[in-house]
Amino acid sequence: MTIEAAAAAGPAPRIRLGMVGGGEGAFIGAVHRIAARLDDQYTLVAGALSSTAEKSLRSGAALGLERVYADYRTMADAEAARDDGIEAVVIVTPNDQHAPVAEAFLEAGMHVICDKPVTTTLADARRLEALARKQGRLFAVTHNYTGYPMVRQARRMVADDALGTIRVVQVEYAQDWLAGPLESTGQKQAEWRTDPKRSGLGGCIGDIGTHAYNLADYVTGLEVSALCAELSTFVAGRRLDDNVQVMLRYAKGARGLLWASQVAPGNENALRLRVYGSEGGLSWQQEHPNQLQWSPLGQPTQTIARGTAAAHADAARVTRIPSGHPEGYLEGFATIYAEVAQAIRAARDTSGSSALNPAVNFPTIADGIKCMAFIEAAVQSSAEGGRWVGLV
Amino acid sequence: MTIEAAAAAGPAPRIRLGMVGGGEGAFIGAVHRIAARLDDQYTLVAGALSSTAEKSLRSGAALGLERVYADYRTMADAEAARDDGIEAVVIVTPNDQHAPVAEAFLEAGMHVICDKPVTTTLADARRLEALARKQGRLFAVTHNYTGYPMVRQARRMVADDALGTIRVVQVEYAQDWLAGPLESTGQKQAEWRTDPKRSGLGGCIGDIGTHAYNLADYVTGLEVSALCAELSTFVAGRRLDDNVQVMLRYAKGARGLLWASQVAPGNENALRLRVYGSEGGLSWQQEHPNQLQWSPLGQPTQTIARGTAAAHADAARVTRIPSGHPEGYLEGFATIYAEVAQAIRAARDTSGSSALNPAVNFPTIADGIKCMAFIEAAVQSSAEGGRWVGLV
Amino acid sequence: MTIEAAAAAGPAPRIRLGMVGGGEGAFIGAVHRIAARLDDQYTLVAGALSSTAEKSLRSGAALGLERVYADYRTMADAEAARDDGIEAVVIVTPNDQHAPVAEAFLEAGMHVICDKPVTTTLADARRLEALARKQGRLFAVTHNYTGYPMVRQARRMVADDALGTIRVVQVEYAQDWLAGPLESTGQKQAEWRTDPKRSGLGGCIGDIGTHAYNLADYVTGLEVSALCAELSTFVAGRRLDDNVQVMLRYAKGARGLLWASQVAPGNENALRLRVYGSEGGLSWQQEHPNQLQWSPLGQPTQTIARGTAAAHADAARVTRIPSGHPEGYLEGFATIYAEVAQAIRAARDTSGSSALNPAVNFPTIADGIKCMAFIEAAVQSSAEGGRWVGLV
Amino acid sequence: MTIEAAAAAGPAPRIRLGMVGGGEGAFIGAVHRIAARLDDQYTLVAGALSSTAEKSLRSGAALGLERVYADYRTMADAEAARDDGIEAVVIVTPNDQHAPVAEAFLEAGMHVICDKPVTTTLADARRLEALARKQGRLFAVTHNYTGYPMVRQARRMVADDALGTIRVVQVEYAQDWLAGPLESTGQKQAEWRTDPKRSGLGGCIGDIGTHAYNLADYVTGLEVSALCAELSTFVAGRRLDDNVQVMLRYAKGARGLLWASQVAPGNENALRLRVYGSEGGLSWQQEHPNQLQWSPLGQPTQTIARGTAAAHADAARVTRIPSGHPEGYLEGFATIYAEVAQAIRAARDTSGSSALNPAVNFPTIADGIKCMAFIEAAVQSSAEGGRWVGLV
Repeated sequence: MTIEAAAAAGPAPRIRLGMVGGGEGAFIGAVHRIAARLDDQYTLVAGALSSTAEKSLRSGAALGLERVYADYRTMADAEAARDDGIEAVVIVTPNDQHAPVAEAFLEAGMHVICDKPVTTTLADARRLEALARKQGRLFAVTHNYTGYPMVRQARRMVADDALGTIRVVQVEYAQDWLAGPLESTGQKQAEWRTDPKRSGLGGCIGDIGTHAYNLADYVTGLEVSALCAELSTFVAGRRLDDNVQVMLRYAKGARGLLWASQVAPGNENALRLRVYGSEGGLSWQQEHPNQLQWSPLGQPTQTIARGTAAAHADAARVTRIPSGHPEGYLEGFATIYAEVAQAIRAARDTSGSSALNPAVNFPTIADGIKCMAFIEAAVQSSAEGGRWVGLV
Repeated sequence: MTIEAAAAAGPAPRIRLGMVGGGEGAFIGAVHRIAARLDDQYTLVAGALSSTAEKSLRSGAALGLERVYADYRTMADAEAARDDGIEAVVIVTPNDQHAPVAEAFLEAGMHVICDKPVTTTLADARRLEALARKQGRLFAVTHNYTGYPMVRQARRMVADDALGTIRVVQVEYAQDWLAGPLESTGQKQAEWRTDPKRSGLGGCIGDIGTHAYNLADYVTGLEVSALCAELSTFVAGRRLDDNVQVMLRYAKGARGLLWASQVAPGNENALRLRVYGSEGGLSWQQEHPNQLQWSPLGQPTQTIARGTAAAHADAARVTRIPSGHPEGYLEGFATIYAEVAQAIRAARDTSGSSALNPAVNFPTIADGIKCMAFIEAAVQSSAEGGRWVGLV
Repeated sequence: MTIEAAAAAGPAPRIRLGMVGGGEGAFIGAVHRIAARLDDQYTLVAGALSSTAEKSLRSGAALGLERVYADYRTMADAEAARDDGIEAVVIVTPNDQHAPVAEAFLEAGMHVICDKPVTTTLADARRLEALARKQGRLFAVTHNYTGYPMVRQARRMVADDALGTIRVVQVEYAQDWLAGPLESTGQKQAEWRTDPKRSGLGGCIGDIGTHAYNLADYVTGLEVSALCAELSTFVAGRRLDDNVQVMLRYAKGARGLLWASQVAPGNENALRLRVYGSEGGLSWQQEHPNQLQWSPLGQPTQTIARGTAAAHADAARVTRIPSGHPEGYLEGFATIYAEVAQAIRAARDTSGSSALNPAVNFPTIADGIKCMAFIEAAVQSSAEGGRWVGLV
Repeated sequence: MTIEAAAAAGPAPRIRLGMVGGGEGAFIGAVHRIAARLDDQYTLVAGALSSTAEKSLRSGAALGLERVYADYRTMADAEAARDDGIEAVVIVTPNDQHAPVAEAFLEAGMHVICDKPVTTTLADARRLEALARKQGRLFAVTHNYTGYPMVRQARRMVADDALGTIRVVQVEYAQDWLAGPLESTGQKQAEWRTDPKRSGLGGCIGDIGTHAYNLADYVTGLEVSALCAELSTFVAGRRLDDNVQVMLRYAKGARGLLWASQVAPGNENALRLRVYGSEGGLSWQQEHPNQLQWSPLGQPTQTIARGTAAAHADAARVTRIPSGHPEGYLEGFATIYAEVAQAIRAARDTSGSSALNPAVNFPTIADGIKCMAFIEAAVQSSAEGGRWVGLV
């Protein structure tokens, strides 16, 4: 980040942030904290970090938080009552808690930054959107992969019609950490992710399938009209899907394949998107995110690198350091936080009236709704033997 | 190839070979001729190289063939009548000619080496199999990618249960040469491949989808029980599919995705196979064929290279030169020819009675039948809106 | 970073940090600020950010610093006089200012974190080391590439003798940003880096050659006994070298080649290290830092990935997020800051007496001295026509 | 190869070829035989394949050669006396036999195709050149890597000034097969290659260092004026070098580094060339030979693939099959044979008077001489402690 960029934000007071979830044994809480800190736009001042009061207090003390609460409802009420109460809350609980927590803080007048999938049902997601709209509050969903500069580059190139008419979308997200029955060993991350009560209808599809779906949507802007899905559970005793195959029909005639798996040995977080149009193709992979492969039809494939002259302003704007010095997951995540901060500051100035401006670059509850519709349609399709199901 | 290996075959008389198709303007004919020559097992002595007598004679003269015929029927009769007539024929015509030509030469008592897809209908393929069986002649189909040493390695590792129970198969074959309406420009390869009369029911699915299907079949040995397909035609005016998506259900519970495309800019012959089991995963790509990625679950991914100590005897047996000196497409193709030669020599000794031995490593009419069943099921599935169709 | 790890540091007061240099137009200042912030161990409270008072004050205001000074001497005096004065200073000026600034703050009793090369002469570097020792203060040098987890992995594997006797070291650092006369265009970074008055004796060799040299030293622990160097200047009018080739003789018989270039089109920050021993070889590249290639002799090459079970505790300790989610340059840089913070906290407790403990993992003035000796020997060797010069 | 291309050569009588060396236990003999056969330009009719009469006769019989000789002198005499005697001889013996065998066959009026290094002394190489000139015979040296299409592409791009003024050349050839004392185990290849009596002055430098040197020379066309070398022997008891580092000064101001090693674990035949000029950079590696990385300064790196529209006619002319279907080592080797065949046919027509035309694309005795000068200078430089030695 250039000093000039920092200057724009620096002296203005940092945004007061609270966190729900993310305490002992969590993984994603620390990621959100680093992401919020990286560009120096937030101060984390309050939290209700665990499902029990005791753990919440212990976790908060460990982090040196100013205000630690036993539960999120107490926190919402107390923070709303303070002049220096939090302006925004981050929700990093298991999925089933997203909706009630978000509701409580929206009602209390705070902006919401929520992990994905945004809820456990499409109906809940729609309700939250209506509430955010009514309250004039921002509702960001951390589909963090959209924060990578080369994803921004890809999106811009599609929007600028560099690829011509989009024909084919291939997106996949493969992991291997659930290739065995990890949830039986007491591993906390595996436990709740394979528990329908806490994760919702989808296992793999909710946890990483939605990331893949969102990434394709974010880059191509194409509407999916119907899908046909096979959800499989390969590990004996597992209660949710661990492998997902989906065929996608897009409204404008393009066709897509989505594969998500948590049982594919050799894959860590192998999120990969390929988009092919009449004039060219793009390929990007999350594990090496600083490069985008661009193949103009009939010409050699080019490697467009983050931070170089070939990168579009949309990518450059979310780039902190020169090319060849890799930015990674945390920087992409931090970009979402920086953009939300900018929107929150704008909302400060305008009393929040334009806070749900659809022109923002970060993912919002609208994206969360799309993902929930995707999960429900895919689960239905699979349950009905792989029938085509429409998405409207 | 070691001198010892050459010795085994060298002094024995070379196999007398004839060719139908592969004349002026053809691509694959030259490939077959190089492949036949590479290991010095064949002598190409006769041919009917084109669909017109004039072109056939001109092409034969250009190649310096001993005996050039105006058409394949004349050739079959004449060669059958000679004491030194050809022992085997290679068929490299457009698809619609495969069946009549093969029939003529089987009837004349010759072994057949035929390009893929083996016929234009499943019924034809079954008929040819019956005829080959009756005549006691070999019928090889040049699914040449099975000749790569690292494909043999992968097949052996699956057979040896290194991967545990197979769960997921991802196979794809992407090209970009038909991203525009090349068939309208007079390009001969594009013309017949997009012409239903010469190609059969399938365009992309027949031309390269079958290669992908065969590769997955060859490596995993898993039987497909049902599929659901979307065949698309993206180039206006094209009469056959140019993009293929298929979901596969395997008899033992595994799930697969197959993608084939001729309209994916940046892809030349991007055939790639990934197989995931309960104990490990494999990844191989045709454009860099000398390496196989092997990921034993919970351990680092290993690069198993052709010609190294880590390669199984099955791979070493079809390797000619040391590791690090790349073998390519022609060598893999030549391996099919070398293995067919070995089978033909064995058939010489045994009057052909064991010639259809299922234990051979090269693809045969049995594989051709599987591919035709695949095409017909996929075309039906797609035509019926993406319904699941069984394969028996 | 796990919550437990954060807990260890969290509630303890953050380290009060000051910065000299890094104001308007600088690149590396922002990097240091993010790195210091990432793990939440420091608070940046004071600065003298530019060479003129006006720019320094403007830059400080832009960053929202509590205490902004017109120049570093005033800052050192004022901070020393405060009860809540800074505990450590970061020096990110052009090279020629490193020594006087460091001296001033060491004299004032602060720890020093200094960019590289640590000084412009070997004599200066030795003097600073003596002063730091006398004052009982820490002196870290930000050879930041040592902070990458897979560099730690490589170092540990060499130390554990996994490679056997080291025979060959190949290290290189290639860039292309100075392929043209950028310094003539007013670009600030290029100006001072090619100005002997501000950079010292070395151009490319000082700017990135030292990084390459330090990386090889850090990983192998081998002492260089002599070198033979060619320093070239390819861009007309440039006053310092822009391409560097060095042959290295190690004390124990190993041999090395070092190449650094700023005129190699297609290279961004292509720092790459390969180490070969009697039992195996390692390869690592900075632009894809989360993977280490490990080739045990006679076995397949393995890809050891950050965050996986195959990573040693030394690598795991400096890892924040799961495998497959890439960490990058800023995280590696932040690791140096986190380790310095740990050492500063330890020095708090022990009145600083053990502060120069050689067992620390981050690079110190001792490494800075090695690099200055390298620069001086290489410049001498090259000036004398590529004569071998001893390093003692 | 297109049918048209084949037509040009096909009906003309094949070139009658003899082979010296390459019998039982040899590796490179089989490579030459396949290479000669691949494009159908030669018939191998005679040989003296081993150093003993018995082995020679056995090897010849195993290959089914028409005429097998007990020794090369008998063969030269006998073939010279026949009307249908060989037109060219291939020499694939250990290095020390190259000169006497070549001499014998040149005296007998045959063209020579010789493996590299062409002799064991520079003086011998010069003598052979004079003899070939006097006899009006071709003398090709199989620096086979020059046959790769993408090497031709690189050479053409340099010649066309796409890179601007060449500044930096980085070339390396790393292997690991001699990391242990393989020559003590009876392995024939290792035995003679590490035996000064049979290999000459150089071990690694002669065997693969010359390939690297030749490749850089072939692509850049730059003359080396001086070098500084370190030849090391890492394996105890070995009598020749197994690791080579050389700094190169080019006549026009460019600088180069050459590294060759046979003790670098994880490297099979890792020959890699990088060339950097004022306007762009090229990178090519032999293990993935179908792609050339081209980095025009300030623009994204492009992957130029064999067989695509981006490939120059010089590359296309030596390409047999479409892009994406990899050609490998044998095809590159065969290209040398095909080009020599073309020159031999031309010499037939012109009584050989223009047979040493310097415009040929394949490497000749002139290249062999350059390599011998390189070996001798490097051995001298290293023996004198790494002194700079001129090459004239």
